[in-house]
Amino acid sequence: MENKGILFVVSAPAGCGKDTILNEFFKRSKTAGYAVSATTRAPRSGEIDGVHYHFLTVDDFKAKIENGEVLEYTEYCGNFYGTLKKSVDDLLENGKDAVLKIEVEGAMNIRKKFSDACLVFILPPSLEILEERLRKRGTESEEKIIERTKQARTELEFAKNYDYLIVNDDLNEAVEDLLSVFRAEKLRKTRCAELLESIKGEKN
Amino acid sequence: MENKGILFVVSAPAGCGKDTILNEFFKRSKTAGYAVSATTRAPRSGEIDGVHYHFLTVDDFKAKIENGEVLEYTEYCGNFYGTLKKSVDDLLENGKDAVLKIEVEGAMNIRKKFSDACLVFILPPSLEILEERLRKRGTESEEKIIERTKQARTELEFAKNYDYLIVNDDLNEAVEDLLSVFRAEKLRKTRCAELLESIKGEKN
Repeated sequence: MENKGILFVVSAPAGCGKDTILNEFFKRSKTAGYAVSATTRAPRSGEIDGVHYHFLTVDDFKAKIENGEVLEYTEYCGNFYGTLKKSVDDLLENGKDAVLKIEVEGAMNIRKKFSDACLVFILPPSLEILEERLRKRGTESEEKIIERTKQARTELEFAKNYDYLIVNDDLNEAVEDLLSVFRAEKLRKTRCAELLESIKGEKN
Repeated sequence: MENKGILFVVSAPAGCGKDTILNEFFKRSKTAGYAVSATTRAPRSGEIDGVHYHFLTVDDFKAKIENGEVLEYTEYCGNFYGTLKKSVDDLLENGKDAVLKIEVEGAMNIRKKFSDACLVFILPPSLEILEERLRKRGTESEEKIIERTKQARTELEFAKNYDYLIVNDDLNEAVEDLLSVFRAEKLRKTRCAELLESIKGEKN
């Protein structure tokens, strides 16, 4: 009995360790594939087209929106960021779960279009700890740290619309949490419509 | 952030390996405790009171029903079988998840009383394979095997009322599935009502 792939969305405020968790998660998951986002911003040093982002021109991006090839998108600092339908379809059609790493507004748009998508929000143990972590890194100005914490507080308001909440207190535990969510979600009765018939021998 | 314990129900048709899965599961779970059932049938050789069952007299069992101390019960072959409220409360109050290993009718009664209970159904890969497995054991008459398979088909009709379906095709995979279900269920947003407030620092 082959399960169909599931569309998962993973969001988190900046500084919550989302990328670290996902990197480790993808090493260990047997079912999940990353649905690479598209953007019109210029590649940064070391970024590879098709791996970190699909880098598109503004005209290309707009054409894809027109043609219904973009599942959700947002404009930020003059650049487009979005999810190409093809990135998701290619994974799901190959029986993989498609993982979108997107911001809260994008996640809400996915939810509207795909009621059976599964939304996971990664949280810091507390906003206080998030602020401390950002400060300890020493890579950002005090002003930027305060702005980020404020932004995190705003994003937390969206967490109540997600299906699962994972606190990143310990990296390994958070990765295990995410692996469990993916594994368990595939076992939910609502996702196994044909399983019971198949077991009774009424379908082959 | 301490999660409250969850009431889990695990059911399966006879011959699906439920006991083997649960034995292995309890060795590996950090959060689950077994809520021992009560019965009025006589202990079998090797069965320990309070471990395999709480062995009660019929009068004791009836008195507990009267006093509201029994969450669900059924009569089978002239004996009572049921779940004592105390068995469940003792686990939940200690922050443990309470696991009930009960039949489908009992599970449906638990669902009615506890809308937030989580119900897991363990399935054979197919009824055909279940029948084969029972036959290979060589411990039961052909008549009994056919009766059991028929009974399994009836019980499968209840599976659609469960939250999760686990197919026992491979023991280790089934145990991993069950561990994931327990872990993920605790992360469901609907079970983390106070978490977001705590992270925002609005509650201590």
